[in-house]
Amino acid sequence: MSPTPTHWIVTLVCEDRPGIVHAVSGAIVSAQGNITESQQFSSADSGRFFMRLQVESAVSREVFEAALLPVTERYRMTWQLDVVGRPLRTLVLVSRAAHCLNDLLFRQRAGQLAVDLPLVLGNHPDLGELAAFYGVPFESHPVTTPGQKLAFEDRVLEVVEEHDIELVVLARYMQILSPELCAALTGRIINIHHSFLPGFKGANPYKQAHARGVKLIGATAHFVTSDLDEGPIIEQNVVRVDHSRTPGELVAIGQDEESRTLTQAVKWFAEHRVLLDGARTIIFT
Amino acid sequence: MSPTPTHWIVTLVCEDRPGIVHAVSGAIVSAQGNITESQQFSSADSGRFFMRLQVESAVSREVFEAALLPVTERYRMTWQLDVVGRPLRTLVLVSRAAHCLNDLLFRQRAGQLAVDLPLVLGNHPDLGELAAFYGVPFESHPVTTPGQKLAFEDRVLEVVEEHDIELVVLARYMQILSPELCAALTGRIINIHHSFLPGFKGANPYKQAHARGVKLIGATAHFVTSDLDEGPIIEQNVVRVDHSRTPGELVAIGQDEESRTLTQAVKWFAEHRVLLDGARTIIFT
Amino acid sequence: MSPTPTHWIVTLVCEDRPGIVHAVSGAIVSAQGNITESQQFSSADSGRFFMRLQVESAVSREVFEAALLPVTERYRMTWQLDVVGRPLRTLVLVSRAAHCLNDLLFRQRAGQLAVDLPLVLGNHPDLGELAAFYGVPFESHPVTTPGQKLAFEDRVLEVVEEHDIELVVLARYMQILSPELCAALTGRIINIHHSFLPGFKGANPYKQAHARGVKLIGATAHFVTSDLDEGPIIEQNVVRVDHSRTPGELVAIGQDEESRTLTQAVKWFAEHRVLLDGARTIIFT
Amino acid sequence: MSPTPTHWIVTLVCEDRPGIVHAVSGAIVSAQGNITESQQFSSADSGRFFMRLQVESAVSREVFEAALLPVTERYRMTWQLDVVGRPLRTLVLVSRAAHCLNDLLFRQRAGQLAVDLPLVLGNHPDLGELAAFYGVPFESHPVTTPGQKLAFEDRVLEVVEEHDIELVVLARYMQILSPELCAALTGRIINIHHSFLPGFKGANPYKQAHARGVKLIGATAHFVTSDLDEGPIIEQNVVRVDHSRTPGELVAIGQDEESRTLTQAVKWFAEHRVLLDGARTIIFT
Repeated sequence: MSPTPTHWIVTLVCEDRPGIVHAVSGAIVSAQGNITESQQFSSADSGRFFMRLQVESAVSREVFEAALLPVTERYRMTWQLDVVGRPLRTLVLVSRAAHCLNDLLFRQRAGQLAVDLPLVLGNHPDLGELAAFYGVPFESHPVTTPGQKLAFEDRVLEVVEEHDIELVVLARYMQILSPELCAALTGRIINIHHSFLPGFKGANPYKQAHARGVKLIGATAHFVTSDLDEGPIIEQNVVRVDHSRTPGELVAIGQDEESRTLTQAVKWFAEHRVLLDGARTIIFT
Repeated sequence: MSPTPTHWIVTLVCEDRPGIVHAVSGAIVSAQGNITESQQFSSADSGRFFMRLQVESAVSREVFEAALLPVTERYRMTWQLDVVGRPLRTLVLVSRAAHCLNDLLFRQRAGQLAVDLPLVLGNHPDLGELAAFYGVPFESHPVTTPGQKLAFEDRVLEVVEEHDIELVVLARYMQILSPELCAALTGRIINIHHSFLPGFKGANPYKQAHARGVKLIGATAHFVTSDLDEGPIIEQNVVRVDHSRTPGELVAIGQDEESRTLTQAVKWFAEHRVLLDGARTIIFT
Repeated sequence: MSPTPTHWIVTLVCEDRPGIVHAVSGAIVSAQGNITESQQFSSADSGRFFMRLQVESAVSREVFEAALLPVTERYRMTWQLDVVGRPLRTLVLVSRAAHCLNDLLFRQRAGQLAVDLPLVLGNHPDLGELAAFYGVPFESHPVTTPGQKLAFEDRVLEVVEEHDIELVVLARYMQILSPELCAALTGRIINIHHSFLPGFKGANPYKQAHARGVKLIGATAHFVTSDLDEGPIIEQNVVRVDHSRTPGELVAIGQDEESRTLTQAVKWFAEHRVLLDGARTIIFT
Repeated sequence: MSPTPTHWIVTLVCEDRPGIVHAVSGAIVSAQGNITESQQFSSADSGRFFMRLQVESAVSREVFEAALLPVTERYRMTWQLDVVGRPLRTLVLVSRAAHCLNDLLFRQRAGQLAVDLPLVLGNHPDLGELAAFYGVPFESHPVTTPGQKLAFEDRVLEVVEEHDIELVVLARYMQILSPELCAALTGRIINIHHSFLPGFKGANPYKQAHARGVKLIGATAHFVTSDLDEGPIIEQNVVRVDHSRTPGELVAIGQDEESRTLTQAVKWFAEHRVLLDGARTIIFT
C-alpha cells in the first residue's frame, strides 16, 4: 500500500537557458511526483526564468530535495520546496486603524488565509481587543521618540528571530521603517497604501484627490524597500467614486480597497505565488 | 389639441442659497413644464449650487426663457437651455492613432453619440480614409515648425468660428496646445491620456509602468487647461494587466481604455451632464 | 442665536403630475429648510414619481411635518421624514455561515453602517461567539421540525414588535420563510444569494457553474417576497473566475461577493435610498 | 550562422499521467526549442491533461513534428502545432446589427486580432458597406424560407471548404443553425449573446431585466452546440446599470459588452488559448 501523497510547491528562479523544464520535470519524475499545476515565465527584462510547480508525491522531503539537487545546482537556481497549505509564520504590525487587521484575522479564522500569527505588534494599544477576540497575542509599545523607535524595531527583529517569521505585514502601520530594518527583511515586508490616478504627492492625498475630482481611488500592496511606497507592486485595486463624496467618505472607501488588496497580496505570498524580478513582481495566480 | 411637447435640458449654476429649487420649479410650472429628470449638488468646497433638469414642455423656447429669466436674474445664475438629443457641434483633432476617432465615429453613426462633426482636423493625413468612410470632412496640415503650429491653431479657431463649434475633442492629438488656444476655448476642450497607479512622470510611462510591474493601467478624460494633463477630470477607467505583458501590449490595452473613456466623456458633455466647480467636475449621470 | 440645524431625509412617492417639485420645495422653504441633496425619478412603467431629499433645517419634527402635510395630502403621497444617520433598528437572522454577519458587525462598529442591532437570531448556535465579541445579543433556536419553524417565526415577529424593528436581514439564513412572515414584513426583509450568468436552477448551483465553466460569479441582494429569490433586486456584484477554480473555491469567492453586496444593500436601505416601484427598485445613490 | 527562429504554439491534450511534462519538454529539447511560455491544467473532472506551449526554434515544421511524434503517440495526444501570429481563417456570419462586426474589423486592421477574413456572409445586405470599407468581401442571401435556410447553410459549408475555414463567428447572426451544421463544425463556431444575473428565459430578456430592475447586464461568448446558447462558455463580461435606463438603453449598453466579449473570445481562439474539456473551456490566457 502506497502512503498518502503530499502536495508540494516548488519555486525555481535561474538564468534562462534551453532545457530547464526538461531537467526539472525529470527531477519530478525521479521523485515519483505528478505535476498538478505549473507556471513559468521568461523575463525579457532580466533574462531570468521563473517557475512554480505544484506536485503530488509520496516521497519524503529528503528524497524530494535529493532529486532536485542536481538540477538546482546545474542551473544555479534559487529555489524553495514547501507543502501546500502550510501556514506562513507572519508578524503583523499595526497602529490604530482596524480595517486591514480585521480582514486578515477574519480570513485566517475562516480558513481562507494560510498564515500563523504568533503576534500582532502595535505602536498603539487600540487593536489589542480585536486581536484578543481572535486569540492572537498582542503587544504594543509607543513610538514617539527615536529611542522608542529603535527599541520597537529591535523588538520586531527579536520576534522575527524567535518565531522564525517569514513575512512581516504592515497593516496600516503608520511609522516609516528604518533603512536597516528594510534591508534586514528585504523581500519579506509587505505594505499597503492608497493609490490614485494620477498619483498625488505630498500630504493628505485624499484631499488632493477630492480637490481635482478624481473618479477612481484604490490601493496598492507592495514590497517595502528603503524607498518608501516605491517597492515592487504585488496587487492593485480601484473603485469608482463621484463628486458627491466628501474627503472623509473617500477615506472610508479607500480603506475597503486597502483591506482586500492587502489580504490578497498576503495570500499570494503565503502560497509562494509572488516572485521578484528586479523591481517587478511575477505573480503566478 | 395641444402640440407635441419638447424635451428640454436646463442647467443652472449659482451661489447656494435657500429657496433655489422652489424658485426654479416655480418657473418650470409657469412654463407648463413637467420635470422628468432632476439632479442637483451643493458644493461644500465652493459654496456653489449646481442643477440639471430635463423638462417636458410644449411652449416655445422664447416662452421658456422668459419664464426662467426672473429666477436666473435673481440668483445670478449661469444657465443653459437646450433640447434633448440636439447634436453638439464638435471639432475633432487627431494625429495618427485611429482608435479614439474610430470609436467616436462608429458611435455617432450608431446613434449612441449626439454630436455633429463638421470636420476632423489632423496634423497627419493618415486618418483621412477613416473619416471619409463615415462621410466626415477631413483636413490635415503638418505641424513641424512654430509657424505651422500657429497656422494650425488659427485654422482651429477659424473652424470653431465658422461652424459655431461647442466642443473640441483631442482624440490623441499629439501636439501641446498653446496657452492662448487653451484660454480661448476654456471649458470646451476635452483631452484623453493614459493613467497609472501610481502616476509616472516623464517620457514613456508605459515603459516605466512595465518596469515597476503595475497591475492596473487606465485612461483619464479631462478638460484641457494650460497646465497640460492637469485639468479637471471628467472620467477614468482602468483595466487589469499582469507581468507577462510587454510594454507594447500595455500600449494596446491602454488604447482601448482611452477610446471608451474619451467617448464617454464626450457623450456626457454633449448631454450637458458635465459642470465645472473650480478644478473639479460635477457629473450628473 | 439660531439652533443647530438638523439634517433630514425626506422620501416621497406619488402619482406623477406637474408641479410636484414646486409644491415640495415650497413646503421645504416654509420649514426654513435648505435642500442639500435631491434625487427624483419618474417611472415610465408605473406612472409614479419618486423623490428623496436631504434638507438642513432647525425647526422641530412637528413643524417640519406640519409644513409637508398640505403637499403630501394634495398629491396623496407615501412619505417618510427621518434624521440623517439615525441607526435603523435591524434584526439579523443567521444560520452557520459567518461571512455576512462578520461584515455587517465590523462595518457597524467602524461607523460605516448606521444600524442598531438589538438581536441576532440564529437557527444554529455557531455565531454566538462572533456576536458576543461585538457586544450584540444573540439567541438561537433549532428549526428542524414544522413546530420549531413556527416558533422561530413567532419569535421573529415578537422581536420585530418588541424592538420596533424596521429591517430584517437574512445574512445567509438558510430557511425558507413562510408566506405569512413574508407578507407580514413585506418590503422590510432583505436577502442575499449567489448569482451566475446565466442563472442555474436547482440544487448546488456552484457545481453547475463549475461544470459549464462560467467565468463570472456573483451575488444579488433583493427584497424577499413569497416567491423566493425572485423579489426586487437591490444590488448585484460579480467577480471573475477561471477554469482552475474548484467548486469549493467558487463558494469562497462567492461568499466575498455576498458579504459586500448585502452590506451595501443594507446601507442603502438604512439611508432610505431604496424605494419600490412594483417589482423594481429605485436606488438613489 | 543560425537561421532566425520561428515562434511556435504547441497545444496538447491527453489522459493525465505522470511524466507527460518531462516527455514533452524532452521532445522540445530535441527540436532545439526554447520554451518561452507554458501553461498546463489537470482536470479533476475529466482526468484529462491540457498543455499549451510557446517555443522558439529554428528547425523546420517537419523536424519539429518528427520530434513531437513519439510523445504524442505514446500518450495518445490530440495536438496542434502552429506559428505564433498566423492569421486564423475565419468566416463571419451577420444579420443587421453592426456593432460586433465593426469591432472585429477595426481590431483586425489595427493588428490586434490575427484573423484572415475571406468573406462576411449575411442574411441581410445591410452590413455590406461596412465590410467594403475594410476591404472584406461580403455576400448576402435572404433566409426567410426553409429552402433559403438550407441554401444559406450549404453556402456556409462551401465557404468553409473552399477557404479551409478554421473558425465561424456568429457576430449577431440572428438565425438558429441547424443541428447538422452545428455537428459539422463542432468546436469551431463561436456565438455571442446577452447575459443577465439571474438569467431570463423567453422573449425579450432586456424587457424582463428592466422589469425586475437588474443592476448588471452582460454578454457571454460561447461555443455553439445544438443546444442553443448552452455551449461551453469562453468569456463573459458585465456592466452596471441603474433604474433610470430604458429597455432601449439596456440594449445599447448590452451591445458594447457583446462586441468586446466576442472579440476577446475570437482573439483567444485564434491564439489557440481555448481548449475544450467536455462542457467546459480551459482558457490559457
